[in-house]
Amino acid sequence: MPEHLLENGLVQVYTGNGKGKTSAAFGAALRAVGRGFRVHIVQFIKGGFDYGELYSVKYLPNLKLTAFGRGRFITESQPPQEDVQLAREGFELAKQIVRGGEYDIVVLDEINVVMYLRMIGVDEVVELIRNKPKHVELILTGRNAPAQIIEIADLVTEMKEIKHPYAKGIPKRKGIEY
Amino acid sequence: MPEHLLENGLVQVYTGNGKGKTSAAFGAALRAVGRGFRVHIVQFIKGGFDYGELYSVKYLPNLKLTAFGRGRFITESQPPQEDVQLAREGFELAKQIVRGGEYDIVVLDEINVVMYLRMIGVDEVVELIRNKPKHVELILTGRNAPAQIIEIADLVTEMKEIKHPYAKGIPKRKGIEY
Repeated sequence: MPEHLLENGLVQVYTGNGKGKTSAAFGAALRAVGRGFRVHIVQFIKGGFDYGELYSVKYLPNLKLTAFGRGRFITESQPPQEDVQLAREGFELAKQIVRGGEYDIVVLDEINVVMYLRMIGVDEVVELIRNKPKHVELILTGRNAPAQIIEIADLVTEMKEIKHPYAKGIPKRKGIEY
Repeated sequence: MPEHLLENGLVQVYTGNGKGKTSAAFGAALRAVGRGFRVHIVQFIKGGFDYGELYSVKYLPNLKLTAFGRGRFITESQPPQEDVQLAREGFELAKQIVRGGEYDIVVLDEINVVMYLRMIGVDEVVELIRNKPKHVELILTGRNAPAQIIEIADLVTEMKEIKHPYAKGIPKRKGIEY
C-alpha cells in the first residue's frame, strides 16, 4: 500500500437544506486529487440516471465514483424495499473501502438522507467512523444529518437555503443541477 | 461562437463563515464541464501560492482558472495598495470574460470578500450582473456577501459553520484545505 498522505483523517459533514452540499464534496475531491490523493465517492440514492459528475470524474486520475440508487428522490417515510437494498449494498461497499484504507478520502454522498430515512442505522455509521483507519478522511453529505453524527464529526457546515430558483418555478437545469 | 448551453444563466451566491464555498463552486464547475460547458474561474485574493486546485484544473477540458492575489488573507480594514491593484486587474478580466459571453459559467471566487473590503465597489458588481449576457451563469463566493448582491441573486446558500477543526487547533492541511 502506498504511503498515507494524511496523518489524521478527520470527519467532515455538509448538511442543511441549501444547494452546494454534493458540490462541496466534489470540489474537495477535485482539490485533493490535484495533490495526488486517492478519492472514492460512494453515492447513495443517486445513480441510475444521467448526471454531470459521471462525465467529469473520468478525466481525473485517482478519483473513483460508485453510485447506488434509482435516481429519484425518496419521499416515502417507508422507503421501497428496492431502495433499502441498494442503500445497504452501497454501505457494504463503503465499509469495505473505508476499512481497506487504500483511499485517502472517502465521500459518502447523501448518507445523511439514508440515515434519516432509516435505510441504514445511525449506529452503523457511527461505528464505521469510530473504527476507521486513522489516515482516512471521511466526507458525509445530505440534509438532516443526525445529531450523533454532528457530535462525532470534526467539521460541520450547514448549507442554509437563503434563496432558491425552484421557488420561482425554474426547473432543474442540465449541467447546473445535475 | 458555439451555441449557448444555457438559455437563462442565473446568479448563484455561496456565502457565510463555514467551509465549502469555494469547494461548492469548483464542484459546480466539475459537474458543468462534464456536460461540455465552458467554465472560467477568476480567483480573487488567492493565487501567488501553491494550492490543490491549480493542479486539478489542468486535467479538465474547458475549465480555465485565473488567480489574482498574493496568497494571503487580507485582514486590514484598509487593504494594501498592491492587493487593491490585483483585485482591480482581476475584476477587469472578469468583466471582459462575462461580457465576451464565450463561457457558459463564470465563477468569481472570493468576490464577496473583495467587495466587503471595498477593493471593488458593490455597484460595479451589480452593474456587471445586470448587464451580463443572458446565457452566462455567474457564481459568486466569499463570506460577507453584500445585501445588494443577495437581493439580485437567484440562488443564495449560506454556509454556516457549526463546527471547525481550526477551533481545536488543527492547522490547514495540504490537499484538504488548500
